[in-house]
Amino acid sequence: RERVRAVLEAPSFQRTIIAVILVNAATLGLETSVTAVERYGTALTVVDHVALYVFVAELLTKVYVYRGRFFLDPWNLFDTSIVTVSLLPLAAGLSVLRALRIMRALRLISVVPSLRRVVTALLNAVPGMTSIVLLLGLVLYVAAVMGAKLYHATAPEYFGDLPTSLFTLFQMMTGDGWSDITREVMDEHPAAWIFFVAFMLVCTFVVLNLFIAVVVRAMED
Amino acid sequence: RERVRAVLEAPSFQRTIIAVILVNAATLGLETSVTAVERYGTALTVVDHVALYVFVAELLTKVYVYRGRFFLDPWNLFDTSIVTVSLLPLAAGLSVLRALRIMRALRLISVVPSLRRVVTALLNAVPGMTSIVLLLGLVLYVAAVMGAKLYHATAPEYFGDLPTSLFTLFQMMTGDGWSDITREVMDEHPAAWIFFVAFMLVCTFVVLNLFIAVVVRAMED
Amino acid sequence: RERVRAVLEAPSFQRTIIAVILVNAATLGLETSVTAVERYGTALTVVDHVALYVFVAELLTKVYVYRGRFFLDPWNLFDTSIVTVSLLPLAAGLSVLRALRIMRALRLISVVPSLRRVVTALLNAVPGMTSIVLLLGLVLYVAAVMGAKLYHATAPEYFGDLPTSLFTLFQMMTGDGWSDITREVMDEHPAAWIFFVAFMLVCTFVVLNLFIAVVVRAMED
Amino acid sequence: RERVRAVLEAPSFQRTIIAVILVNAATLGLETSVTAVERYGTALTVVDHVALYVFVAELLTKVYVYRGRFFLDPWNLFDTSIVTVSLLPLAAGLSVLRALRIMRALRLISVVPSLRRVVTALLNAVPGMTSIVLLLGLVLYVAAVMGAKLYHATAPEYFGDLPTSLFTLFQMMTGDGWSDITREVMDEHPAAWIFFVAFMLVCTFVVLNLFIAVVVRAMED
Ligand code: NA
Ligand code: NA
Repeated sequence: RERVRAVLEAPSFQRTIIAVILVNAATLGLETSVTAVERYGTALTVVDHVALYVFVAELLTKVYVYRGRFFLDPWNLFDTSIVTVSLLPLAAGLSVLRALRIMRALRLISVVPSLRRVVTALLNAVPGMTSIVLLLGLVLYVAAVMGAKLYHATAPEYFGDLPTSLFTLFQMMTGDGWSDITREVMDEHPAAWIFFVAFMLVCTFVVLNLFIAVVVRAMED
Repeated sequence: RERVRAVLEAPSFQRTIIAVILVNAATLGLETSVTAVERYGTALTVVDHVALYVFVAELLTKVYVYRGRFFLDPWNLFDTSIVTVSLLPLAAGLSVLRALRIMRALRLISVVPSLRRVVTALLNAVPGMTSIVLLLGLVLYVAAVMGAKLYHATAPEYFGDLPTSLFTLFQMMTGDGWSDITREVMDEHPAAWIFFVAFMLVCTFVVLNLFIAVVVRAMED
Repeated sequence: RERVRAVLEAPSFQRTIIAVILVNAATLGLETSVTAVERYGTALTVVDHVALYVFVAELLTKVYVYRGRFFLDPWNLFDTSIVTVSLLPLAAGLSVLRALRIMRALRLISVVPSLRRVVTALLNAVPGMTSIVLLLGLVLYVAAVMGAKLYHATAPEYFGDLPTSLFTLFQMMTGDGWSDITREVMDEHPAAWIFFVAFMLVCTFVVLNLFIAVVVRAMED
Repeated sequence: RERVRAVLEAPSFQRTIIAVILVNAATLGLETSVTAVERYGTALTVVDHVALYVFVAELLTKVYVYRGRFFLDPWNLFDTSIVTVSLLPLAAGLSVLRALRIMRALRLISVVPSLRRVVTALLNAVPGMTSIVLLLGLVLYVAAVMGAKLYHATAPEYFGDLPTSLFTLFQMMTGDGWSDITREVMDEHPAAWIFFVAFMLVCTFVVLNLFIAVVVRAMED
């Protein structure tokens, strides 16, 4: 086991895995091209299967070497779940699951130290944001219910039911095309601007403060 | 009174109120679905009424326990006004007032401590922003009067009267579709870009500084 | 002169001037409404003239009181130029000049101390931004000349000549509808995305740094 | 050589070069106007050639004066590559290369000290961003492969092949028109909002943190 471990932790082994991930990401990218599939279809499938075998073998070796500790490292769980998702389509053949195979390229995050550090930093910022994100979600839900209640008949494509209304208000929160929707609703309800402008102001204000909270927290570290 | 107070301030009581708010928010959300209303219409109404009775009872109990001090806590006034708004539609039956019932979900803010803290922090940021917001409002008003004066005949759907012009310039301030409107006006007034580009630059500059003011103030605390 | 000065600097005098500015801003706003002009047209004109007389009298009194020092205060020059612009339309009657009369409402900035402080702070931020703004202008000019050279035939409404190209690229810099324009150009020049994506990335990067420069400078004070 | 060097480093020489760059930028701008070319075509070409000769002469003189050290200063390499690009069209005559001549105006950056300082500061910010930009690129690639796999048949103009899908997702990352594309895809795949909203949230979160990383780094200096 010690010998296997030395191989696993050797820089050359890490580099091989990175190379396999990159090659696999490239072949999965080529699979989106009809001409590439026609010409090199079998080659692409072979590379894809080989890459998957390599990943499975790597994970099994790690389990063998680290035993119980393997499951204590969240990055190992990340790798395992990505590889597991990739194994499903072999059985099911669903197009959505097949599309998820490219998620394997995300293994780069756990293998390349600088990416790993960045993502760890990102995840550390999450706890400081939960309260404001919860507040934003609450505002979104309340506004969506109001929007669906008031405008479902006026603009069914935007406020027809609660999920549609939630999507529309999330869209408005990003500022994309909010005024066209507002003008359309205002054709029938001239006072609708009160609802939409208030929503825009509240969202901008909360997002601004979310942002500031994260900056201030980052400063303190 | 001391015993009632102990009940009111017990964590289990708080948790019950949170549960009632969440259930009520869910039933109000379901009310937006025609099929849900057809099937469970009466059940939804019953839950809604029960929730309202619970909120009224809670507030009355608090008034009984805390007496005059009840009205000194702004969060109690917040809760009272939300519940009062919810009582109005029972009498009036107006659809806009009925839609406001979902505002009750905002009571989560006063009940969940972390949300309460976040909103308090947000409100504390307001005084430091008033001057810049006033300035922004002044710029918006001046630009809206000029826009209505100059372009009401060229683009009546955007600058037909002062309220329309105010809405259009607020839209431009958020950057949404500002160039399409400008191009439309420029078809008739080729120099109109001066007005709109100047407006965009001034707004961006003021908003940028509003932002900085808030960041700097947050840093100092 | 000392007595006149005491009147000028009395808080009640300041408040009167603020009231005149607000009333005048309101009447100029009402002038944009056809019905208001039909009903109260002469009243609005009278108020407008009276307000202008008040402003001219105020400025002349200040010149009388402060003499040479009057012209040393930039806010006095600001007030003088705004009132001068308002006097022009009485002679010329041009609609653009008439629309500029609402600029008088900007006198609030020089009269209300908190607005005055905010604008002073804004103007103090300008020197620290000139270099980056110059750089942004240079990038915009270079990109506009290239855009006009390459795409004037493909998309004349966007890149037909240099001013049009400048406006289009300023629009893209604000992110408004940049992808529609890019797709339209790409229909004929499939490699055009290189130019536009590069422009977007450079602009975003420079604006981000402009922003940071201002934040850091604000922190140091 | 010492005498030539004194001339090269004299402020008056610098000012002459700046003047030549500005004049040349103006003539290249005028070249985009058909009427200007018709009337002053030869004059514009003459000025353009003279400016190019001046730049070549300046660079050769610098090589003569500074010898090997010339190539150690990155700004000299910047100037050399810009002038080299300008020499190519004289031979090839390709319209794209001709359009690149305006890049000469970017020489202002190396000649004007304040611009030089700003760009140096910008470039210093780059190393601190590489990891996050890499992560963003990885997310973009993974999402583009998934988008092309899942929606190439539904919305070929947006997800027809991998490059198109990459461009579309870059567009969505900037927030421009993302909801229209999402709604179009959702007409056929009602669950597509999961993919797009997740992409928007991840991108916003990563960009936010990119931003913060740069601010915090700038603070520390
Ligand atoms: Na937009
Ligand atoms: Na936008």
